[in-house]
Amino acid sequence: MTSSRSRDSKDKIPAPISWENGRVVILDQTRLPSSEKFISSADYRDVCEWISSLRIRGAPAIGIAAAYAAALAADEYGSTGRIDRRLDAALKEIECTRPTAVNLRNVLVRLRKMDFGNGRVADVLLAEAHRILSEEVEACRRIGEFGNELVPKRAVIMTHCHTGGLATGGFGTALGVIRAAHEAGKKVTVIVDETRPLLQGARLTAYELQKLGIDFKLIVDGASGIAIGRFKADLAIVGADRIAANGDTANKIGTYNLSAVCKENGVPFYVAAPRSSFDPAAKSGDDIPIEERNPDEVTSIAGRRTSPEGISVFAPAFDVTPAGNISAFVTERGIIRKPFTKNIPKLVG
Amino acid sequence: MTSSRSRDSKDKIPAPISWENGRVVILDQTRLPSSEKFISSADYRDVCEWISSLRIRGAPAIGIAAAYAAALAADEYGSTGRIDRRLDAALKEIECTRPTAVNLRNVLVRLRKMDFGNGRVADVLLAEAHRILSEEVEACRRIGEFGNELVPKRAVIMTHCHTGGLATGGFGTALGVIRAAHEAGKKVTVIVDETRPLLQGARLTAYELQKLGIDFKLIVDGASGIAIGRFKADLAIVGADRIAANGDTANKIGTYNLSAVCKENGVPFYVAAPRSSFDPAAKSGDDIPIEERNPDEVTSIAGRRTSPEGISVFAPAFDVTPAGNISAFVTERGIIRKPFTKNIPKLVG
Repeated sequence: MTSSRSRDSKDKIPAPISWENGRVVILDQTRLPSSEKFISSADYRDVCEWISSLRIRGAPAIGIAAAYAAALAADEYGSTGRIDRRLDAALKEIECTRPTAVNLRNVLVRLRKMDFGNGRVADVLLAEAHRILSEEVEACRRIGEFGNELVPKRAVIMTHCHTGGLATGGFGTALGVIRAAHEAGKKVTVIVDETRPLLQGARLTAYELQKLGIDFKLIVDGASGIAIGRFKADLAIVGADRIAANGDTANKIGTYNLSAVCKENGVPFYVAAPRSSFDPAAKSGDDIPIEERNPDEVTSIAGRRTSPEGISVFAPAFDVTPAGNISAFVTERGIIRKPFTKNIPKLVG
Repeated sequence: MTSSRSRDSKDKIPAPISWENGRVVILDQTRLPSSEKFISSADYRDVCEWISSLRIRGAPAIGIAAAYAAALAADEYGSTGRIDRRLDAALKEIECTRPTAVNLRNVLVRLRKMDFGNGRVADVLLAEAHRILSEEVEACRRIGEFGNELVPKRAVIMTHCHTGGLATGGFGTALGVIRAAHEAGKKVTVIVDETRPLLQGARLTAYELQKLGIDFKLIVDGASGIAIGRFKADLAIVGADRIAANGDTANKIGTYNLSAVCKENGVPFYVAAPRSSFDPAAKSGDDIPIEERNPDEVTSIAGRRTSPEGISVFAPAFDVTPAGNISAFVTERGIIRKPFTKNIPKLVG
């Protein structure tokens, strides 16, 4: 099996996922920014654990990880010519690691449709995993190009959670747009929500922006409203875990609140996502399953209990931003404006 | 000097501040909920440090603390008949401990206007401090009574930060309304924002609600939008640090965001506050100074660094909720509805 590690040596952000000598290699994102630790495995069950525990995260990145996990499972079972019973069970296991990001499901649907001929299923799936990875990187580059058109020459940009190179195959979605604007010579300042409970903004977005030399300010999630006025925000841009047919968008918890303060203040609110994050089968946000996480993620921070024992917690990992709060989607095929129900299928259907 | 400790023995919440044997006694709120530690001092400088470092916090509570600090300073300087130069400097020092809550300034304006006759200033100020404490407790009780009228028999109530007994003289403002509804036999469920960065919701509101036996769910601040829909919230109620003449309200960072998602969802948004939190001199929110805190409060949690070193942070302690997002104010003199510019002076002017 060949290597997928074609990391641009000029790139300052490590590759989030690669394939080396028959093993999947990821950067363990739970340890960032204090430690850049790579882990690897040839067991698809490890990849499942990495996805569930957020060692690799970001909707496009977990889609890629799922593809490599499928190839590993097929290799383990020596499947030939078709998806046999054991491989089918493994694919289901991979698909169920996290419920909200549709990229996982989209990738597995794609892999199941492959023509395996009489050959080794693992070879076909691995080649397709490599293809998915390079498609996702290319999609991010194009999202960056299209999104850059929305960014003024001097821009203050709000963002939430983490949508950079590490959340995708590389380059990033919403953060890819910001990066493209910066690389085009624009003067960009980013307002970064820390993104409780798991602090992907404080840990990962801050880490990538610092590496890229892009100016930013970190805020608590509740400070986005005042920050919009204080810094005269020009726009907000976020990623997506699943976009319904009507434009309702599931994304990291807190995205909906950010969209509400943007709407209040007339700040355009964009969602940057590849085609793999769209789900035509979900008519609206009501059809998107919302993952609930372990209450400990809310009641403890950095291993230390911060609230009384024995309390009740509501810990959704995502929320749904209604289409009405979204100005446009930025995809690798261009920008989608309203009416979404008509224009989404046109561009990404 | 006599004791102010008239704590209701049936009360499950410790007194946030009291006067015992010539010393101010407070519950150190930075250590809650893991430890209930009382600290005391006869030096006004310690009280200033307690206010600055949030060992005592909540707009009404810091007003009370300021009054006792003034009495301690007058005692130390042996001031007689008037506020002499050294006492004047001490009062200014007390007033400058925190900039946003107007209660501090209102208390000091009140103390400066006292008639000291030819007696010891300390005696006059201490008697007035006791009076302020009991007035604030009484105000909270009345706020609870008036606010209870706004709460349905079965109610899901959103709140932000901490506005309970510990944030006031006792009983609480917004949390006092919730408590009054609970004590009136209503079935109340509270959705508690954790309130980053200092987690007053997770630490203090959760602590008080648990002690009072009131049902609640803790959420991260970014989850308030989805929680409104999921739990069918009936209303939101918060406290205030300063209310301008037009109704614009400074309160803990994140309040504005909560008001925006409430507005989006048609959820009434109430502010509960005593007269001492109103500032007729501030025409609008633009006239309210917003305290910015140490960036470490954002970049580190529980003493552990969570974001990269050397980054820029915006760390406002408060934001301003525009009057347009506020349905009504609940005060000890009744409920104030729109138009606020006309009705605020009528009731609390």
